[in-house]
Amino acid sequence: MTRSPFQSLAEFRAALGQLPPVDAGALDAARSRDASLTKPPGSLGQLEDLAIWYAGWRGERPKLEAPQILIFAGNHGVTAQGVSAFPPEVTAQMVANFNAGGAAINQLARCFGARIDVHPITLDRPTGDFTEGPAMTEAELLEALSLGWAAVDPAADLVIAGEMGIGNTTSAAALAAAMFGGNPRDWVGRGTGVDDEGLARKAAAVAAGLARHRGELLDPLEALRRLGGRELAAMAGAIAAARSHRIPVILDGFICTAAAAVLERIAPGALDHAIAGHQSEEPGHARLLGALGKRPVLTLGLRLGEGSGAAVALGVLKAAIACHSGMATFAEAGVADGPG
Amino acid sequence: MTRSPFQSLAEFRAALGQLPPVDAGALDAARSRDASLTKPPGSLGQLEDLAIWYAGWRGERPKLEAPQILIFAGNHGVTAQGVSAFPPEVTAQMVANFNAGGAAINQLARCFGARIDVHPITLDRPTGDFTEGPAMTEAELLEALSLGWAAVDPAADLVIAGEMGIGNTTSAAALAAAMFGGNPRDWVGRGTGVDDEGLARKAAAVAAGLARHRGELLDPLEALRRLGGRELAAMAGAIAAARSHRIPVILDGFICTAAAAVLERIAPGALDHAIAGHQSEEPGHARLLGALGKRPVLTLGLRLGEGSGAAVALGVLKAAIACHSGMATFAEAGVADGPG
Repeated sequence: MTRSPFQSLAEFRAALGQLPPVDAGALDAARSRDASLTKPPGSLGQLEDLAIWYAGWRGERPKLEAPQILIFAGNHGVTAQGVSAFPPEVTAQMVANFNAGGAAINQLARCFGARIDVHPITLDRPTGDFTEGPAMTEAELLEALSLGWAAVDPAADLVIAGEMGIGNTTSAAALAAAMFGGNPRDWVGRGTGVDDEGLARKAAAVAAGLARHRGELLDPLEALRRLGGRELAAMAGAIAAARSHRIPVILDGFICTAAAAVLERIAPGALDHAIAGHQSEEPGHARLLGALGKRPVLTLGLRLGEGSGAAVALGVLKAAIACHSGMATFAEAGVADGPG
Repeated sequence: MTRSPFQSLAEFRAALGQLPPVDAGALDAARSRDASLTKPPGSLGQLEDLAIWYAGWRGERPKLEAPQILIFAGNHGVTAQGVSAFPPEVTAQMVANFNAGGAAINQLARCFGARIDVHPITLDRPTGDFTEGPAMTEAELLEALSLGWAAVDPAADLVIAGEMGIGNTTSAAALAAAMFGGNPRDWVGRGTGVDDEGLARKAAAVAAGLARHRGELLDPLEALRRLGGRELAAMAGAIAAARSHRIPVILDGFICTAAAAVLERIAPGALDHAIAGHQSEEPGHARLLGALGKRPVLTLGLRLGEGSGAAVALGVLKAAIACHSGMATFAEAGVADGPG
């Protein structure tokens, strides 16, 4: 593994205070270009907004040619509470499937020309069961954040952080509840497909976790340590690293967004370089996106994880950028731009 | 031009009565395959529905490798009523832009590997102003339907029919009102961007057209002749031809859907091979999709035409088919498919 970019959680926290802002000049230039293109003003709808947002991070007339999909995998002690429809062994089995090219994310990556890097994180050593104690030690949290940060290729021009981890919708629900309040039942969903009893066990596990760590959850990074998981921490690290390199991010579903929200709660604006790719069927996701003020590009009923919702949205973002950067202007094309 | 496939409108109508049905065996096989793939059941949401629908027309484990985008352009006599924000010359100017590769649809086609064929239809001879008389003669309607039919490449595996025609949202609104009833104001929108007065002129033109042709609009093909346009007729012809070749279609926006609805009204089920790619900002489109029972894949606020909304949805459909046909099964990947 590469040398850790951070020696302490304090260093990570400090890095979040020094993230680069959007380039206002590039935004203005993109808006001007958009207005000059051969189409009625506004007629490409959200595609125009997406391209302008992307140009704000990447500069004028950008291209999107080197998207990187990161998949972080982790195991969760909370599976002991019967919160998943699948056994924990599936995490490692799916990592093998990612490496063999057989999972949904592999097909999506090929479809839209993205590279995939898979990072299983100590799958043989699950996090602690958060209903009984902290999920991670400080050293474990730092290691996962650092691993995620280092996983981002500075030459990428778009990052998607995906995950695999049996039990991680429960972990994400607990983390979301710690950060945004509300009833545990508001944040849990059927995940990979639990029945009503499984859903009740998930809500009970979240409630038990919140009770167990009461008074220790005000700091989002500490909430991540106590309730989260290694793949959630790695996603947070990767999304922050992308920002440090001015690489835009497409957020995936509920788990990815819960991890990303940790950054926004620590440093408001830390997710300005990120859009919501797809609103998951997992009911907590709409609530989470609402809390973050993010409007999803797509709502197609996915609830798979792996970065899959974000990867489908990558196709839309590529389309938006292709239009913005490739279309002729009214002057270039000799088209009348209003009533003759 | 290729020899006309139809010698009369009656022959076209007869062809609509002999369209091939979906392959129920292929649908079943696709549903079985979907259930065996390495993901929780249903977790790819609408992507699963899209892939199964496509397999029903193209056979088991399909590929989508040769999409064809057709753009038909026509001019409209009703522009004399002041219904557009742009002058009629823009139709020909945009055709030149399509041929030069500078329009939005060119970028989208390149992005998703689609071929584009542009068919301007007698742009120097606009249709008649439908507020004063029929838009087309029977011969003109037959010519446009036939041109659209012949434009479909039988080797394509997906067809998108797009359009360009200053004034054609007004024509589509009149056609939709004739087929589905309701107040003209329910069917008109701002199109390329008319102001409130322009919008009122559009509604007045639609009302005048409905009054002028009262009693002659019960037959959808006759409504198309009297109120439609050459590019609308060509789209209807192309969508019907695609069905005859078992080629799935992605419908574009309001104008394309109004043209397609003619087929469904003549022969219920004629659009079973077509999905709604994108719900336009043009307010009549949601109403039209509702009447046809079509749920759009995307809602991104586009209102451009050219096939652009459908072309963005092509990316989603490609993603859906890539997952369905490319993913490993639980057995192939050695992944546990339920509680261990």
